[in-house]
Amino acid sequence: MASRTKLNVGLIGLGRLGRVYARDLATRIPSTRLAAVADLDGAAVEQIAREYDVARTSTDPAAVFGDPGIDAVVIVTPTSTHRAVVEGAAAAGKAIFCEKPLSISLEEALAIRSAVARAGVFFQMGFMRRFDRGFAAAKRRLDEGAIGEAVVFKSTSRDPYRPSVEYADPRSSGGLIIDMGIHDCDIARWYMGEVAAVQAIGGLLAYPELGAVGDIDNAVISLIFASGRLGVIDITRNGIYGYDIMAELLGTNGTLRVGYIRETPLMVMTKGQVAHDTVPYFMERFAEAYTAQLENFAANVLEGRQPPITVDDGVEALRVAIAATEAQKSGQRVTV
Amino acid sequence: MASRTKLNVGLIGLGRLGRVYARDLATRIPSTRLAAVADLDGAAVEQIAREYDVARTSTDPAAVFGDPGIDAVVIVTPTSTHRAVVEGAAAAGKAIFCEKPLSISLEEALAIRSAVARAGVFFQMGFMRRFDRGFAAAKRRLDEGAIGEAVVFKSTSRDPYRPSVEYADPRSSGGLIIDMGIHDCDIARWYMGEVAAVQAIGGLLAYPELGAVGDIDNAVISLIFASGRLGVIDITRNGIYGYDIMAELLGTNGTLRVGYIRETPLMVMTKGQVAHDTVPYFMERFAEAYTAQLENFAANVLEGRQPPITVDDGVEALRVAIAATEAQKSGQRVTV
Amino acid sequence: MASRTKLNVGLIGLGRLGRVYARDLATRIPSTRLAAVADLDGAAVEQIAREYDVARTSTDPAAVFGDPGIDAVVIVTPTSTHRAVVEGAAAAGKAIFCEKPLSISLEEALAIRSAVARAGVFFQMGFMRRFDRGFAAAKRRLDEGAIGEAVVFKSTSRDPYRPSVEYADPRSSGGLIIDMGIHDCDIARWYMGEVAAVQAIGGLLAYPELGAVGDIDNAVISLIFASGRLGVIDITRNGIYGYDIMAELLGTNGTLRVGYIRETPLMVMTKGQVAHDTVPYFMERFAEAYTAQLENFAANVLEGRQPPITVDDGVEALRVAIAATEAQKSGQRVTV
Amino acid sequence: MASRTKLNVGLIGLGRLGRVYARDLATRIPSTRLAAVADLDGAAVEQIAREYDVARTSTDPAAVFGDPGIDAVVIVTPTSTHRAVVEGAAAAGKAIFCEKPLSISLEEALAIRSAVARAGVFFQMGFMRRFDRGFAAAKRRLDEGAIGEAVVFKSTSRDPYRPSVEYADPRSSGGLIIDMGIHDCDIARWYMGEVAAVQAIGGLLAYPELGAVGDIDNAVISLIFASGRLGVIDITRNGIYGYDIMAELLGTNGTLRVGYIRETPLMVMTKGQVAHDTVPYFMERFAEAYTAQLENFAANVLEGRQPPITVDDGVEALRVAIAATEAQKSGQRVTV
Repeated sequence: MASRTKLNVGLIGLGRLGRVYARDLATRIPSTRLAAVADLDGAAVEQIAREYDVARTSTDPAAVFGDPGIDAVVIVTPTSTHRAVVEGAAAAGKAIFCEKPLSISLEEALAIRSAVARAGVFFQMGFMRRFDRGFAAAKRRLDEGAIGEAVVFKSTSRDPYRPSVEYADPRSSGGLIIDMGIHDCDIARWYMGEVAAVQAIGGLLAYPELGAVGDIDNAVISLIFASGRLGVIDITRNGIYGYDIMAELLGTNGTLRVGYIRETPLMVMTKGQVAHDTVPYFMERFAEAYTAQLENFAANVLEGRQPPITVDDGVEALRVAIAATEAQKSGQRVTV
Repeated sequence: MASRTKLNVGLIGLGRLGRVYARDLATRIPSTRLAAVADLDGAAVEQIAREYDVARTSTDPAAVFGDPGIDAVVIVTPTSTHRAVVEGAAAAGKAIFCEKPLSISLEEALAIRSAVARAGVFFQMGFMRRFDRGFAAAKRRLDEGAIGEAVVFKSTSRDPYRPSVEYADPRSSGGLIIDMGIHDCDIARWYMGEVAAVQAIGGLLAYPELGAVGDIDNAVISLIFASGRLGVIDITRNGIYGYDIMAELLGTNGTLRVGYIRETPLMVMTKGQVAHDTVPYFMERFAEAYTAQLENFAANVLEGRQPPITVDDGVEALRVAIAATEAQKSGQRVTV
Repeated sequence: MASRTKLNVGLIGLGRLGRVYARDLATRIPSTRLAAVADLDGAAVEQIAREYDVARTSTDPAAVFGDPGIDAVVIVTPTSTHRAVVEGAAAAGKAIFCEKPLSISLEEALAIRSAVARAGVFFQMGFMRRFDRGFAAAKRRLDEGAIGEAVVFKSTSRDPYRPSVEYADPRSSGGLIIDMGIHDCDIARWYMGEVAAVQAIGGLLAYPELGAVGDIDNAVISLIFASGRLGVIDITRNGIYGYDIMAELLGTNGTLRVGYIRETPLMVMTKGQVAHDTVPYFMERFAEAYTAQLENFAANVLEGRQPPITVDDGVEALRVAIAATEAQKSGQRVTV
Repeated sequence: MASRTKLNVGLIGLGRLGRVYARDLATRIPSTRLAAVADLDGAAVEQIAREYDVARTSTDPAAVFGDPGIDAVVIVTPTSTHRAVVEGAAAAGKAIFCEKPLSISLEEALAIRSAVARAGVFFQMGFMRRFDRGFAAAKRRLDEGAIGEAVVFKSTSRDPYRPSVEYADPRSSGGLIIDMGIHDCDIARWYMGEVAAVQAIGGLLAYPELGAVGDIDNAVISLIFASGRLGVIDITRNGIYGYDIMAELLGTNGTLRVGYIRETPLMVMTKGQVAHDTVPYFMERFAEAYTAQLENFAANVLEGRQPPITVDDGVEALRVAIAATEAQKSGQRVTV
């Protein structure tokens, strides 16, 4: 009965975020059909297929690429597999959405970019903050001139607890700055343009057990944009009180401030105190943004529009994050 | 492929809220299938059926009641039709969800109650505020004793603009207090128990054009609960700045305050001023609550649980709202 | 050495608020000199005189009235003495500032008004909320038309704990509505004009021990203004969390909301919670307003200006509060 | 009549802040007497003397030092004169309060320290933020362990507009980082201990006219504390929306956040917007803190207590600010 054109999407990767995307593609986004799922974990594949009536399933992404009934792939596999998966999807001519970070290695990121360019396929980078209503509204107001020229950019990202030691291992995560700060680096570029140089300080201050794999848990990164304007990013694993994501644009005529931390619209007022709860984590904070991001991806593919976040954006955000990681280690200013 | 049991729901009424429920039943709620839709407006039926692949369609609710493949009906038709539609659905043995208000006439509401009782069907009243995270958390904290005994209840409802003069006509809407205040009356009872008496004042203060149909646009209702505790509800059509819904419970050991008015997590800070936007209307404020409400309905029917909001709740909230309407007109205290 | 003209003020009454006024008159207000103090309590007189180098002291107000070196008197004695003290000061031709409430009896209030009129002296009524920056700014914005026409007035007053049973005794305090609500009644008139009728509900809900003297601890008062506009005041002794004073003006083009409850500019953010402290009581909430009020009084007397708050304002606010007290007792609407 | 011992204070410097201190010493602080004032500007001396009945006046600070009736001096002269004035006061054996910054030159600051040590006089450094209720409460909560160990310090200072070009001249102001950031450097040390190294970025981004004297208008300073913990300070002259001073302590068990920007307790709510005003400038934001600071100074001298903020604190904060200024210029990390 449905005459509306839907994008047939193959979802590769069924981890925590993969399952959110499965739900979004299958139910929340009118313009997509979750047509195939693949993951190394056959049980996860089975479960999601049952949950959302997914017709085609596999433990091998290649099966999805080879399927002519699939228009586009959404890649949410571990970062270390991005290159292989993107190359396979690109070679098969699929439209591609790839979750951040593109890679933790610049060489690999550039290889991905080449593969995409060679194949000439549509590629949209996943940075969901751009689809958050707050971040998006700030961009609109900035472009409308609401604060004159933005001259200082500030961004804060706070996780409420540390990841597992295994996850934090810089050999797979890239380390704190790449793993968490890549979002801040992307937003920095989106609002302010290219970064020319960075400085950074960091330390392992709250979770000594992360020392086993050589990661840090707090960092402050200073940015000098190509325009000469300034930025500062601070990242922590010990947000403790909640998942707190903030950004500010300090302009010549005003300031824009993005963020919130209250989860439930309830104030509890007891003797001498007013209190409220907090946003638990990224799934809650960015639930709408994740959905909006894939909805945008589908619309772009279906309507032949250019992606708002390109493979270059993935490469350049990574370049900044890698430079900041180096700067943190060396104590020197690093040109991006 | 899907082995999970889903509730086959027939949706009766495809107005503004009906369309939200259509989307929720078809896509947001894993445990429901939007199996049938009916509305007098054949074009609306056609459109929704196409949008969500709905197999059974009709311009007559009776077609839905007669369909053995339909387990439950969700009724979002105009209030004046509630009695006929509920009676039809009850006679057919369907599980019923009925949107507020049950009726604008107590006689009719009691007739609905009788029909439900006679048929012995499952009936859940729609009062979505109870499913809002803030209102629900306040109830939980209250029951946990976070504020001792609640002794004063306050509730505020503000529409950002007036309805059409036609809609406002008390002959169909019941007038301001029944139309808007029924929610506050329900929450009052949920938190505080039965209402013993009411007083009310009101006036047509902002929109003289509503005088054509004899409605008012502002009211303040004082409540005396059966327990001797106090309550106050204020309602306005001239919220102007946004859709603002607040409630407070003043206890012997603390206070609970529910509500929020900022829509986008962005502060715009210009010379001498900090500003943010506001929640536009009920669709935005209660989007999650509407979905949660139908999800709860489906779970209750599927799992054989009692409804959390009964036909009696619909009757009693209406009784309070009617008494308040009389009190506003007479200037006298009215026993409920 | 000082050539600036200062007003020589005699302060009558050295209770809790009297001591604040002593400090303000002696040190905070450049245009006043605390020239005399009187109180039945000789030790208090002695102590204040030492603290602020006050030359003239007495345990009898008459000594202050008779002193030709005194230009003006500030009266902060118990309400029951207001009539005698004002009559004495008026007969002596002193400019008078009298703390709220004027009286708890309308007859007495009218007698005070007559005495002031007969003597033709300057008389300024004390209602410090009008000098709070928030309340004053709301009045300015209202008069500027920032919200169009104000059609609904709301006011909330919350004490953080109950007074002593002795203090609460309605024979001296006038009862909850006169004692606490007189401020709300004054602000109601200031913003909205005269009150035509009131309804009220109330109860003894949190502190049964106040039953010994027959007072209540919570009340809700509905106001119908002469203009037909509406108002609602709620008052409680069980604020518990802090001293919370709020007001709202709901207009045809917007809303003004006055109030705050955070005392210290510090947020304490711990696992899953954000919290702040609260304003303890009226001394902290209205410290600036009390000073500004006396500074305004002095300026008015020195410069020959009319008082912004007259004896009539004292009479009329009392009239509303007495009517509300009667309405609460009778359950009937009372014409003011 | 007054038997209470008061500290006889000579106030040196009657500029903007000097006049605030004059009022505080003369009227707000019960334990001080404004016994003498001196300033190069004879008219200012005359005016303040008249306003507050100050007996001894001079255009030469030396006259104050030589006066045996003066117990203590409060120095609020231009920074460039601090050395000479402090040396004079110290040699005369007066107790000294000196406004920040001690100097803009480390050599001069050390010379001041030596002079104070040689004379053995009481010396209290002026850093009023420590006396703000928010900053002080954060220190208390930190010391009580409310957030575990503080591992990251953040501080933000925003002026609402630029100073005059003449004032901004780094030859007299020390440049942006010393002029504004000295407060943040002091608070950093107070909360977190000594700073080991700094990095900084800065630029002239909003007010090109400050280029005439070689100053910048925005800076971001990264701090590495001797403990290995981290800090970041951002400073701007283009706060535009208001005077915004914030600090945060990110701990292993929670976070403390200090600051506020709403001046008047009034929300103005118009179509689609909620807005409030902002704190204009430091006089408004820190009015109470300035008073509390001098009250503390007087109490310390009268009661023989050690100063809470020493000349060393003045030297060390300056050392950090100078290192940050160098780091901003060189782009290199600078060891403090």
